[in-house]
Amino acid sequence: VKTDRTEFFSDAVFAIAITLLILEIRVPDHGPLAPALLRLWPSYVAYAISFLVVGAIWLNHHLMFTKFAKVDGSLMIFNLMMLMAVAFLPFPTAVLAEALHRGEDQNIAAALYGGTLTVGGIFVNLTWHHAVRSGLLVGGLTDDDIRRISRHYLVGPIVYALAALLGFFIPVFALIAYAFLNLFYLWPLRRHGAPPASESDAERDAPEGP
Amino acid sequence: VKTDRTEFFSDAVFAIAITLLILEIRVPDHGPLAPALLRLWPSYVAYAISFLVVGAIWLNHHLMFTKFAKVDGSLMIFNLMMLMAVAFLPFPTAVLAEALHRGEDQNIAAALYGGTLTVGGIFVNLTWHHAVRSGLLVGGLTDDDIRRISRHYLVGPIVYALAALLGFFIPVFALIAYAFLNLFYLWPLRRHGAPPASESDAERDAPEGP
Amino acid sequence: VKTDRTEFFSDAVFAIAITLLILEIRVPDHGPLAPALLRLWPSYVAYAISFLVVGAIWLNHHLMFTKFAKVDGSLMIFNLMMLMAVAFLPFPTAVLAEALHRGEDQNIAAALYGGTLTVGGIFVNLTWHHAVRSGLLVGGLTDDDIRRISRHYLVGPIVYALAALLGFFIPVFALIAYAFLNLFYLWPLRRHGAPPASESDAERDAPEGP
Amino acid sequence: VKTDRTEFFSDAVFAIAITLLILEIRVPDHGPLAPALLRLWPSYVAYAISFLVVGAIWLNHHLMFTKFAKVDGSLMIFNLMMLMAVAFLPFPTAVLAEALHRGEDQNIAAALYGGTLTVGGIFVNLTWHHAVRSGLLVGGLTDDDIRRISRHYLVGPIVYALAALLGFFIPVFALIAYAFLNLFYLWPLRRHGAPPASESDAERDAPEGP
Repeated sequence: VKTDRTEFFSDAVFAIAITLLILEIRVPDHGPLAPALLRLWPSYVAYAISFLVVGAIWLNHHLMFTKFAKVDGSLMIFNLMMLMAVAFLPFPTAVLAEALHRGEDQNIAAALYGGTLTVGGIFVNLTWHHAVRSGLLVGGLTDDDIRRISRHYLVGPIVYALAALLGFFIPVFALIAYAFLNLFYLWPLRRHGAPPASESDAERDAPEGP
Repeated sequence: VKTDRTEFFSDAVFAIAITLLILEIRVPDHGPLAPALLRLWPSYVAYAISFLVVGAIWLNHHLMFTKFAKVDGSLMIFNLMMLMAVAFLPFPTAVLAEALHRGEDQNIAAALYGGTLTVGGIFVNLTWHHAVRSGLLVGGLTDDDIRRISRHYLVGPIVYALAALLGFFIPVFALIAYAFLNLFYLWPLRRHGAPPASESDAERDAPEGP
Repeated sequence: VKTDRTEFFSDAVFAIAITLLILEIRVPDHGPLAPALLRLWPSYVAYAISFLVVGAIWLNHHLMFTKFAKVDGSLMIFNLMMLMAVAFLPFPTAVLAEALHRGEDQNIAAALYGGTLTVGGIFVNLTWHHAVRSGLLVGGLTDDDIRRISRHYLVGPIVYALAALLGFFIPVFALIAYAFLNLFYLWPLRRHGAPPASESDAERDAPEGP
Repeated sequence: VKTDRTEFFSDAVFAIAITLLILEIRVPDHGPLAPALLRLWPSYVAYAISFLVVGAIWLNHHLMFTKFAKVDGSLMIFNLMMLMAVAFLPFPTAVLAEALHRGEDQNIAAALYGGTLTVGGIFVNLTWHHAVRSGLLVGGLTDDDIRRISRHYLVGPIVYALAALLGFFIPVFALIAYAFLNLFYLWPLRRHGAPPASESDAERDAPEGP
């Protein structure tokens, strides 16, 4: 089965979720504008982190699908569950902004945010492992390649879960961890120059993400 | 006529409707965060059910279109009416969450939800039957195949309508029925391994859905 | 220049505008649910009319582009102005629903709605006439074909403008006119069986729309 | 690496951002409708300017990508940062409409609006210069072409930044500048007749935008 429509549907969900983030930033409707805009800084921080999180997941989703020769029903379901977590993200993003704004309950907001990403990361891993076990990969990947890619994906949910836990005690730690993970998952793209865009030129060294 | 643009437009509507669901969950804006987030459980349940409902309809829509060699104007109109029901779903989803949250009128909310899905399911069936009657199917489908697929599609609106009716008396029954139907329509994908993605490898045994 | 990306961008705007319509229907948040849902009937009517309006414009946009061999910069700008009117439609739709709900100012709401469609229809005509004058059409269209299609497109803005004007005095007349125009622009699809989806099988008799 | 999926993802973000603009216009919910609709003129102005701004960026993004033979990871990241500014635009648009409506703080709103476009324009330039430096361009572009295109792109962030600064003192100046830039970036499309849509017919004289 070709991967086209699943990739298209996933791309559309990523693009919509990333663009809906802005709707959670409310326009100040009373009082002087300048201080009101400045008081919204938590919303800007939350917007930027979530935009990059979704962008990084999109880029790495893109990379993962270049390793798939075909998809099957289970893979589509795991992919759908991952998308459910991504499409949910505008909510914890807004909760996080609200908590930072109010200066209370940041730990709970950071944990909710990290928990959502952890669930998404788990389904990314389930998608990948299902593809490995069910022979859905393109040819030319050695066992070493697969082990290395598997390790790379595993970093996501583990660090997200740890950040969510520790963030429960020191909220700012979680935010730094989420920003760091973004760099981790975007960096390889820089280092390797270019992600593979088609099966034929799939770059066997490209790490993959969250 | 090729099916490409109709599929693209439908996919986009599915992707947008599934992603807009999150906008109906309002961020708690006063009081302690933890209990406020917990009180939102009906919204999470409604979000998850609707996400899977739309996901299942998308997957089965995808399967159905692999059986179409071409589309005609009537089919595009039936398809448009089906999309109208899908795009309407965020509203009954939010009504259901509100009713569960308030603990009253769940029966009416469950009936509205089921009614919307019933209407969608009826147009799925009209789309399919129009394609059968008008010779729009790909070659290689026996009368037995068509009868089996027709039966499979018919399950959707009938069970949705029954659930809406019974849910009017026992609301929780309706929710269980909607969850069960999701499993019913997602399960074949697992069992058969992979849905056919192109006419050439259309898998003649793949049941199709709601 | 190929028409692909302009069609894709337009399709996406149509799909998003049609799906955003639901966001204008607010969930009732107090009082018994059943009468509250019934009181929302103007929102359902406005949703259905606008969904079919956008659906009809999409279908006919699709048909028009099958007549284009290529696009140029001016055509893209006219097309962009048409999309601006389509993307604006959720606002007059919500205004119309609110006016019907309150039972006052329906004439102004109906005129705003019709005015938006009139502007959209004018840009549809400008797009078409620019393509005719600038030699962007596919081969095989006779002068008679072009005259007939031009007439067909002209119906849209003229009837919309008349409906907006008359609707200023008898609001319900405008609503009936918008519903009638939907049938007018969707009907050919039924009559002709199938719209042409590619230049090669462009059906020379297919009327085109608003 | 092929440019397809990056273009698709970008197109989807443009299409969603441009369509979400309408959600920032609130339906008047009390008082006579006609004056209430007239009082919303700042929202209509802001909607139209932003729609054309995003449309012009989309058209020019489209043109830029026709000059790219492939993309690499850094380019995808610069492109993602540009999209972050575009997807942010509904917020300064709504702030601008609110400030015009209240008749105060227009200077701050105009500066926020221009600042967002300046950031977007900077990333457009970074994307282009990265492509030039890293040999991602299609063949056939002379050094003169590249210098001319680079100059053309540079106009955007410089004029946006100047408009934001001057708009801090004379708000209306900023609005006129944004409208003028739209014409500047849409005009070449008219003058040159048609933007190139594929590498093979890339029109070497087509200026490119913001």
